[in-house]
Amino acid sequence: MPAQSQQQSIESPVRSIGIVKKQTAILFSESPLTLSSGQKIGPVTVEYETYGTLSPDRDNAVFVCHALTGDAHAAGIYGADDHKPGWWDPLIGPGRGIDTDDYFVICANVLGGCQGSTGPGSINPQTGERFSLDFPFLTVSDIVSVHSELVRYLGIQRLCGVIGGSLGGMQALDWSVRFPDQIAAAIVVASGHQLSAQGIAFNAVGRRAIYADPGFEKGNYDPDNPPRFGLALARMIAHITYLSEDSIELKFGRRLQDSDKFAFDMLKETEFQIESYLHYQGKRFVQRFDANSYLYLTRAMDYFDLAESHETLAAACERATCRFLVVSYDTDWLFPTSQSRELTTALLEVGKHVSFLELHCSFGHDSFLIDIDPLAELIQPFIDQTRVSEHRRKLRSAKTSA
Amino acid sequence: MPAQSQQQSIESPVRSIGIVKKQTAILFSESPLTLSSGQKIGPVTVEYETYGTLSPDRDNAVFVCHALTGDAHAAGIYGADDHKPGWWDPLIGPGRGIDTDDYFVICANVLGGCQGSTGPGSINPQTGERFSLDFPFLTVSDIVSVHSELVRYLGIQRLCGVIGGSLGGMQALDWSVRFPDQIAAAIVVASGHQLSAQGIAFNAVGRRAIYADPGFEKGNYDPDNPPRFGLALARMIAHITYLSEDSIELKFGRRLQDSDKFAFDMLKETEFQIESYLHYQGKRFVQRFDANSYLYLTRAMDYFDLAESHETLAAACERATCRFLVVSYDTDWLFPTSQSRELTTALLEVGKHVSFLELHCSFGHDSFLIDIDPLAELIQPFIDQTRVSEHRRKLRSAKTSA
Repeated sequence: MPAQSQQQSIESPVRSIGIVKKQTAILFSESPLTLSSGQKIGPVTVEYETYGTLSPDRDNAVFVCHALTGDAHAAGIYGADDHKPGWWDPLIGPGRGIDTDDYFVICANVLGGCQGSTGPGSINPQTGERFSLDFPFLTVSDIVSVHSELVRYLGIQRLCGVIGGSLGGMQALDWSVRFPDQIAAAIVVASGHQLSAQGIAFNAVGRRAIYADPGFEKGNYDPDNPPRFGLALARMIAHITYLSEDSIELKFGRRLQDSDKFAFDMLKETEFQIESYLHYQGKRFVQRFDANSYLYLTRAMDYFDLAESHETLAAACERATCRFLVVSYDTDWLFPTSQSRELTTALLEVGKHVSFLELHCSFGHDSFLIDIDPLAELIQPFIDQTRVSEHRRKLRSAKTSA
Repeated sequence: MPAQSQQQSIESPVRSIGIVKKQTAILFSESPLTLSSGQKIGPVTVEYETYGTLSPDRDNAVFVCHALTGDAHAAGIYGADDHKPGWWDPLIGPGRGIDTDDYFVICANVLGGCQGSTGPGSINPQTGERFSLDFPFLTVSDIVSVHSELVRYLGIQRLCGVIGGSLGGMQALDWSVRFPDQIAAAIVVASGHQLSAQGIAFNAVGRRAIYADPGFEKGNYDPDNPPRFGLALARMIAHITYLSEDSIELKFGRRLQDSDKFAFDMLKETEFQIESYLHYQGKRFVQRFDANSYLYLTRAMDYFDLAESHETLAAACERATCRFLVVSYDTDWLFPTSQSRELTTALLEVGKHVSFLELHCSFGHDSFLIDIDPLAELIQPFIDQTRVSEHRRKLRSAKTSA
């Protein structure tokens, strides 16, 4: 529906979903989830949100997987006074790229997170204390196992699509090969089948900043007195990798923050605007994110390798049955286009249905969170087409069984 | 002399300069040096080394400017048992790119450094205590002012060339416009006329790591008990920017360090080889470098802007009279080729003699320290040609005055 998408800038039915609410599911109460590490966890609390209405046939559900430091609040606001809509609000809503007039959208905070789902900040039922670093090690597959269970819990047999950017894209990929019957489409944005060595390196120095903070206390910090310096620094480092060199140059260049003259002060840490910006990002992050969660989730990202225990990436892709849409950004150097191309090639090699597009956007890795219109224009027809395919599949299947 | 250069791999007169020794000069004893900040400093101790013999005409001197964490020990060894030659040893020596059979090579530890020259770790004569952060703020121009004075101290009126990579290249550029009569050629390798916003960002997070280390104590740490975590982390972060994505992928990829299986251990920091490598680099760096020096020198790098106080970069270049050789590496993302091209364009705009070449080498920014042969093949004829030009210039000048 490109016509509708183009209307977004003028008066139109395109709008935010409006007021939404947090929901909670308790999963794996009866039998715990066995994690990739072999450890078990349960019950698992999942905080999630839904937007739109589930169709009577329960065939219009789209699962949105959030990135490293995201949460379940993908769209809408919590009340009339809430001026900060969900992180993908411009993409999800009535008439938007993921159209809540047509689709039922689910987004859940990941296992290991710190925004309502069970994570290292949760109370360990066995000890009555916070898990902290006693929280079991987790992988992208474990995150997806929980999401997958949530979908069953919601009474949905098959998702029309799973979509995610960055770590969210890894979840979509994992889902496609581990629960192939559960999803009709995977939309993988600014992501890849594994993190590069450079990406691991940046995660490693970020974690090092947290470990080295004396306030970290091997993870047993008081949540009211977290390792602020370390976590903020980890975010500052990571934030550089989310921006393209061009956007950082354009937005800040070499401009000074407070003056037009150098301060010549060795203790002044925010002399350049880019420094001030990074400090601000670090400070803001500490207010909303937990250091232990950061450790666990970056490690999950490091570990993720779709091709793991397969001879080739193509072999790993073979189990998938869904349609794929792979989107990269030309200025993203954390998950460069070459990675998306490699994934696409592997999928094609084993005969999968895959569309791949590199979008031009100057915002680097963060493009998928900022430049929504071009993304919406790809996603909208892709999901609609998936639904049509699903409908045909059902008809065929009904005929066969008749 | 390309024939000679090609002989490097077979038996040839090409060899290391052999045993060299540290030398010390005390400069600015009588009247102190006024720094860019307006502060004064003096006397200034400079540790330097020389290789080769100064010609009777004193016209064969080449000054080598070291990079951020380099030192005066560019070539040779300190004794028969010393198995670690200087940092640019493959480039400097008899028959090598900078041929010590023909040239007299000088390399000095920078002002603000920690390898023998006056820096924040030196004793403040006014207090009898270490300067620490009372050391005056310094810029690339201040470093060059000291180098320039050292050249005069050595009785050399005009250098045949100034060469440097990275921060060393910035020094060569600064030298070319601030002391134009003192140099006949500037060779600028893997460098630029200013640090990008992204470069400033990486320096900023590195410094943040040092500032946040409780062992830093506002710079007043005991040198035997420095802020090890912070300095090591700063180096680890910086080291990522010195490597290309391809080289890091090729050298380490996603290979694990100790095992072929994941450890699933949240406290294990060196699970991947790339992590282990970065930790090793950090640890080694702390043994040889001072945290306060790191703060000062990265700030000097941030501040450097050849175009500062000029309308355009070209206008800034106008004062230079020397020949320029600008060399970039195709995989260097800290000082990308685009920067070298911008510099070259500006120099050409104001009619300067400039040769520019982008070398292909997979090692990223570090290429200038690793892949010496292609660099030597550019530098050798360029310096030789400069010497010929200088000779002609002298003849013309003698004729004019006759």
